[in-house]
Amino acid sequence: MSDTKVYRASTTAPVNIAVVKYWGKRDAKLNLPTNSSLSVTLSQNDLRTLTTASCSSTYSGDDSLLLNGEPSDISGARTQACFRELRARRAALEAADASLPKLSTFPLKIVSENNFPTAAGLASSAAGFAALVQAIANLYELPDSPSELSIVARQGSGSACRSLFGGYVAWRMGDKEDGSDSKADLVAPASHWPSMRALILVVSAAKKGVSSTSGMQQTVATSGLFKSRIETVVPANMALMEDAIKNRDFAKFAEVTMRDSNSFHSTCADTYPPIFYMNDVSRAAIRAVEAINAQAGKTVAAYTFDAGPNAVIYYLEEDAATVLGAFAPLVASTDGWKDGSATNATVKLDEGIASTIKEGVSRVIMTGVGEGPQKTDEFLIAEDGSPVKR
Amino acid sequence: MSDTKVYRASTTAPVNIAVVKYWGKRDAKLNLPTNSSLSVTLSQNDLRTLTTASCSSTYSGDDSLLLNGEPSDISGARTQACFRELRARRAALEAADASLPKLSTFPLKIVSENNFPTAAGLASSAAGFAALVQAIANLYELPDSPSELSIVARQGSGSACRSLFGGYVAWRMGDKEDGSDSKADLVAPASHWPSMRALILVVSAAKKGVSSTSGMQQTVATSGLFKSRIETVVPANMALMEDAIKNRDFAKFAEVTMRDSNSFHSTCADTYPPIFYMNDVSRAAIRAVEAINAQAGKTVAAYTFDAGPNAVIYYLEEDAATVLGAFAPLVASTDGWKDGSATNATVKLDEGIASTIKEGVSRVIMTGVGEGPQKTDEFLIAEDGSPVKR
Repeated sequence: MSDTKVYRASTTAPVNIAVVKYWGKRDAKLNLPTNSSLSVTLSQNDLRTLTTASCSSTYSGDDSLLLNGEPSDISGARTQACFRELRARRAALEAADASLPKLSTFPLKIVSENNFPTAAGLASSAAGFAALVQAIANLYELPDSPSELSIVARQGSGSACRSLFGGYVAWRMGDKEDGSDSKADLVAPASHWPSMRALILVVSAAKKGVSSTSGMQQTVATSGLFKSRIETVVPANMALMEDAIKNRDFAKFAEVTMRDSNSFHSTCADTYPPIFYMNDVSRAAIRAVEAINAQAGKTVAAYTFDAGPNAVIYYLEEDAATVLGAFAPLVASTDGWKDGSATNATVKLDEGIASTIKEGVSRVIMTGVGEGPQKTDEFLIAEDGSPVKR
Repeated sequence: MSDTKVYRASTTAPVNIAVVKYWGKRDAKLNLPTNSSLSVTLSQNDLRTLTTASCSSTYSGDDSLLLNGEPSDISGARTQACFRELRARRAALEAADASLPKLSTFPLKIVSENNFPTAAGLASSAAGFAALVQAIANLYELPDSPSELSIVARQGSGSACRSLFGGYVAWRMGDKEDGSDSKADLVAPASHWPSMRALILVVSAAKKGVSSTSGMQQTVATSGLFKSRIETVVPANMALMEDAIKNRDFAKFAEVTMRDSNSFHSTCADTYPPIFYMNDVSRAAIRAVEAINAQAGKTVAAYTFDAGPNAVIYYLEEDAATVLGAFAPLVASTDGWKDGSATNATVKLDEGIASTIKEGVSRVIMTGVGEGPQKTDEFLIAEDGSPVKR
């Protein structure tokens, strides 16, 4: 009798925001980076991808992915690489144990949803590929560790490898040509330093900038300053950042975070033609953080920017009132502000900075450090293989 | 009988805009730079300082400077260094020839005026110190060459040393501790490549940024990328730029100009805390130049930015219609646009870029390469030593 069962597994996966940035590939096919990087995994209460992977001998046709309700093209080399790698690992298990169902031979049907609007302008590919890989690994019952799975996720989207862990996560660049040592590892779990918070100022950009994949290729090829970033600046920042996290030293964490963001965007601006992700609103957010720290008399906030104008501001729960108090008059009426947030309006921002932020920030996300992928019984695919209506 | 004559001499001096930027001092007292730089001297028809230097035994009190009608503080170390150096050179002449009047012992009275509004936000210190030094050198009848005088002007304001020459001018950083080899020399006179034009888009900045003197000190002290700029990027750019000028190769001139401006501003943004001179209007000007070159099918325009948001756009007279045609719809109604400029509206700019420029540019300056300081009989001080009413 043939196996007509629909096999299913679900996972969530988090977004991560780097404090030492990934920018530059030494191998574009394998997504091998020119430098190591380090990130904070953000809480899935606020930002997460939920993915159900399923397979069945009854499925006809090719593998498929439904992403936020829309069929998604999975023919790209990166997605294909993830499927291929995971199937190979399953096939090895099946070869070793004949009693296992031959899931590796069945078509995959995957359904994935984010709990945050695309309009937030957050790079969702990290959470997306991490969830995709973890869900299929769960479906296939692979024994691989998160670090081993991160090698697969990395081939989907570089920074996705860091979303296989919660807390504070390093992506070690490695030096092998096949990328087998270019993977994520845990610097510290969220429980080591649980009071880390993030306020994301979502800035409406007139137009989407250069994609990060093509942007980083251009930087590697044309920036005269890039070499010193990857050879000198980043290795120093990685060491400083790991120390800062291990010692829960926020002042050091903040300084390295801000310097590394500046360094990354400087190499973008040194690209030819130059790449600008930050705009005048982003720069006003930098000035606001500087003013908050100056008026607080100590470092209580740190800015960082990915490949876009949004400001991510890290701070500790104990300084929430000071940091949120400075921004509340400007953004508390936008989507995403959590009512009841403790605020203390001791910090006074310059008029021009305040009005630039007030006019330029369209919504906020208030979150903090969080856990890695979580297996869940919430399925986006029903037992009969059909997508769950939501 | 005592000498009661008022001795006078006048000169004009030009503004220069660097195409390989000066940013960083290795000796702040002597204004010795961390790298060589290269500039285009702009026409004095549009931008110049006129300075009359005078001295007389009948003058009482200290040296004085009237700048644009206002008494100016000359007690600063830099101005004092210029006065001291020039007096020493005069004193040496007087010691060698007893028949010379002892001008070095008389108080100096100096009057200086710019022919452009301070509101233009152009660094006037280069033209100002070049005119000051040249006027006193004329007054003292010093035999020093422009290159020798550039050593004096450099001590007033680094980039002033390049305004002692017309045309295309290099400031060689030198390596001596006393700065005696850190001086300007002529790469090519204006007549070598007379068709070079400059369109300056004057951008209204909300607030003056960090001064260049303190800014460059901070960059040297804190930017992790700066070392590679001065050790690798600038030496390469200097060599490429000199070749480009010698061969009148505008495409190469333009690429190095744009890359070097980007590199300079990148090291500013990599300073901690970061220094931003450019704003969204500046970046729109960059995108406009890129669009002009792309649509022209060849490089006809080059942007560069000093320590402020103004865009300086270099182009050749033969491409005036194309370059000016792209900007005319946006800025032809502002102060400074020269009616009758040949324009050809073949270039179409993106809506967002066009509106950002139209809203953000408050005036323009249309000029070109020009000559160095010119001795003149136009005096800002009358024969009796009083300032001329104008």
